[in-house]
Amino acid sequence: MKTALYCLLLSMAGLLALTPAKPTRVVFFGDSITQAGVNPGGYIDRLRKALPADQFELIGAGIGGNKIYDLYLRMEDDVLARQPDVVIIWVGVNDVWHKSSFGTGTDPDKFVKFYEAVIKKLRAANARVVLCTPAAIGEKTDFTNPQDGDLNQYSQLIRDLAKRQNLPLVDLRQTFLAHNLKNNPDNKDRGILTTDRVHLNETGNQLVADEMAKVLKEM
Amino acid sequence: MKTALYCLLLSMAGLLALTPAKPTRVVFFGDSITQAGVNPGGYIDRLRKALPADQFELIGAGIGGNKIYDLYLRMEDDVLARQPDVVIIWVGVNDVWHKSSFGTGTDPDKFVKFYEAVIKKLRAANARVVLCTPAAIGEKTDFTNPQDGDLNQYSQLIRDLAKRQNLPLVDLRQTFLAHNLKNNPDNKDRGILTTDRVHLNETGNQLVADEMAKVLKEM
Amino acid sequence: MKTALYCLLLSMAGLLALTPAKPTRVVFFGDSITQAGVNPGGYIDRLRKALPADQFELIGAGIGGNKIYDLYLRMEDDVLARQPDVVIIWVGVNDVWHKSSFGTGTDPDKFVKFYEAVIKKLRAANARVVLCTPAAIGEKTDFTNPQDGDLNQYSQLIRDLAKRQNLPLVDLRQTFLAHNLKNNPDNKDRGILTTDRVHLNETGNQLVADEMAKVLKEM
Amino acid sequence: MKTALYCLLLSMAGLLALTPAKPTRVVFFGDSITQAGVNPGGYIDRLRKALPADQFELIGAGIGGNKIYDLYLRMEDDVLARQPDVVIIWVGVNDVWHKSSFGTGTDPDKFVKFYEAVIKKLRAANARVVLCTPAAIGEKTDFTNPQDGDLNQYSQLIRDLAKRQNLPLVDLRQTFLAHNLKNNPDNKDRGILTTDRVHLNETGNQLVADEMAKVLKEM
Repeated sequence: MKTALYCLLLSMAGLLALTPAKPTRVVFFGDSITQAGVNPGGYIDRLRKALPADQFELIGAGIGGNKIYDLYLRMEDDVLARQPDVVIIWVGVNDVWHKSSFGTGTDPDKFVKFYEAVIKKLRAANARVVLCTPAAIGEKTDFTNPQDGDLNQYSQLIRDLAKRQNLPLVDLRQTFLAHNLKNNPDNKDRGILTTDRVHLNETGNQLVADEMAKVLKEM
Repeated sequence: MKTALYCLLLSMAGLLALTPAKPTRVVFFGDSITQAGVNPGGYIDRLRKALPADQFELIGAGIGGNKIYDLYLRMEDDVLARQPDVVIIWVGVNDVWHKSSFGTGTDPDKFVKFYEAVIKKLRAANARVVLCTPAAIGEKTDFTNPQDGDLNQYSQLIRDLAKRQNLPLVDLRQTFLAHNLKNNPDNKDRGILTTDRVHLNETGNQLVADEMAKVLKEM
Repeated sequence: MKTALYCLLLSMAGLLALTPAKPTRVVFFGDSITQAGVNPGGYIDRLRKALPADQFELIGAGIGGNKIYDLYLRMEDDVLARQPDVVIIWVGVNDVWHKSSFGTGTDPDKFVKFYEAVIKKLRAANARVVLCTPAAIGEKTDFTNPQDGDLNQYSQLIRDLAKRQNLPLVDLRQTFLAHNLKNNPDNKDRGILTTDRVHLNETGNQLVADEMAKVLKEM
Repeated sequence: MKTALYCLLLSMAGLLALTPAKPTRVVFFGDSITQAGVNPGGYIDRLRKALPADQFELIGAGIGGNKIYDLYLRMEDDVLARQPDVVIIWVGVNDVWHKSSFGTGTDPDKFVKFYEAVIKKLRAANARVVLCTPAAIGEKTDFTNPQDGDLNQYSQLIRDLAKRQNLPLVDLRQTFLAHNLKNNPDNKDRGILTTDRVHLNETGNQLVADEMAKVLKEM
């Protein structure tokens, strides 16, 4: 009898060991930078290679030109419908940039309100949420990139939000600035981490992948 | 027996006749123009005097600077909590104006999306919805007011929306233009229906009240 | 003696008749539309074929993105140095457009001041000046193109300026609108006279060439 | 005879010594900040009290809302007509600010071109020229004031211009930042040197007066 029971338990343990654990499903929710992130060499592509496939399923959900309220408007279809375990929100460049390029940027107080509304819905669907600061519109390190004031402001709003809601933060603006202070001695506006002041080159994609991997491994 | 029943029915009918019908609760949902509408002489104040108080309860819910997505963000507290029978939405001036004054106007496609989202929530709460077009930023009649192109465009989007969703429309842009074509021979940019190109003077408040009364009486 | 003198005079008259008159030198001073005007099929290219080469020398001086004050800043080198007989100024689209695309459009009162300064310098150099109104940013005929209000306003400022200074005017905005009212029944925003809402297609180039030819033939 | 001549020369020398030297005429050429500078307590008013009246004649020529090309357009009447010995140019806030508030800011390259044109005309009239950087639109010290990127950029353009043309510079942006790093521990956006993020309070007026006095005493 004892032996039989023992055998049974062993079998069950064996079955459990063989059953693969469901990998953590991560949705990257953002703008054109994230849209390009799934391309070969993009930051999501690099994360797929860096993280164990049985532990992480990575899904890109970036659309060019998106501002925080675009994320809000499309989150049901593009994020919640995929039942993510983790959602990494990376937005803000267009909320600032569209002020001067279309006259349709986002007021800072509305930026926070819609960001909060996105987080609330994600949490209600039991997704863990990670915030990111917008990295750069221009890589000059002396804060003479035209949108630096606004980008610093919106980044600070996101940092405050992460703190207030006790959410993990990937502070890409800080990371990019630190990298450029070391690697951009000529104060160039592009070419260190971006191709065009905003979108990531190879080094930029790797840096973002590294920073996000750190946070994902701890979740 | 028959007589007794007859008497009973008569009494009930009498009671019903005496019970005052609950007045139709109308919420005016908009921006600074509507915020001023509740002031003495404002269009809501004029409507209160023009419509029977036992039939209509009129509530102002206008806040200065509001764009369509501000209405969306505050509609739970400011409109739905009041369980309105009818909601008159009048918005659009700031969605256009803030493009040049703050760089934070509303993209036309997002304007429609948030407008639809507002309507959807109101209808889900069994409110009947009335749409209005933004009247004016400048009263010149030759379409040389700087925002005329955008105002015409956003007004058309609202007209299309009203048609698509079969909702009553108060086409104030049309009304204002028609009035000015008759009454503004010197092509002035203010002073006919507005004090400052946007906010209503006495004639403007009366004209808006008249137009809204027409729609409300039919509801 | 008398005969000899007569013969001399005859010879001189013959020489004069044989000496070709210097053609009228016309400089087209403007933005990207004029820059493209010298290309094969462009409006200046078409004018070169339509006008007698011995009577008109046509020179393109258009630079993409130019606003009125860009014309002012470069007029010495690009126009006056060529000692033109006639200068056709066609500008305004970017003064309006750059408001929303870069935040650096031109205030209407400064637009007039710099336009006047350009005209003053050209006249001081004995050039005859022709003004044009900016044709279009979008070809829709119901004034729902976003910049229609501003374009109408700046066009009116140019019409007033032409009148005030008694200068010939090519009212391209009027011409384009009239053409589209006949030929754009579907209220499209491009494709009738422009390829992209602003720059001329074949029909547009021909229409502009025709309008300018009318004025040049009378000078 | 010799003695008489000697006496005459002595008398003339005495007359010259008694004739007061013409004071240095300084024109302050700028925007609303300079317009307010002549008010009691304003920075020009403070300079008048700080500098010897027999050595300096101080003239305010500030007009609210002015950008660099407004200065260019009105410099004949407002500056050159006064035959100044020294002109202190302080401009830039509106060139940046009007981008978002009216869509009519100044492109950075045109800012430099018009600045150079102003300097050229002043020097041609034998005026010595002093440049200033725009101090602030917001006093926060962590570069989160919305226009900080642009203000830093335009200030750098002015510093480069001063260096290139070997002109004295009052680097008010630097001075204000240094002052706020010491005296604005709460990172407030106004109230340390400005009343409203831009215009000077008492401390701000005194600081500007002090900085300008240093340069004027050396001229």
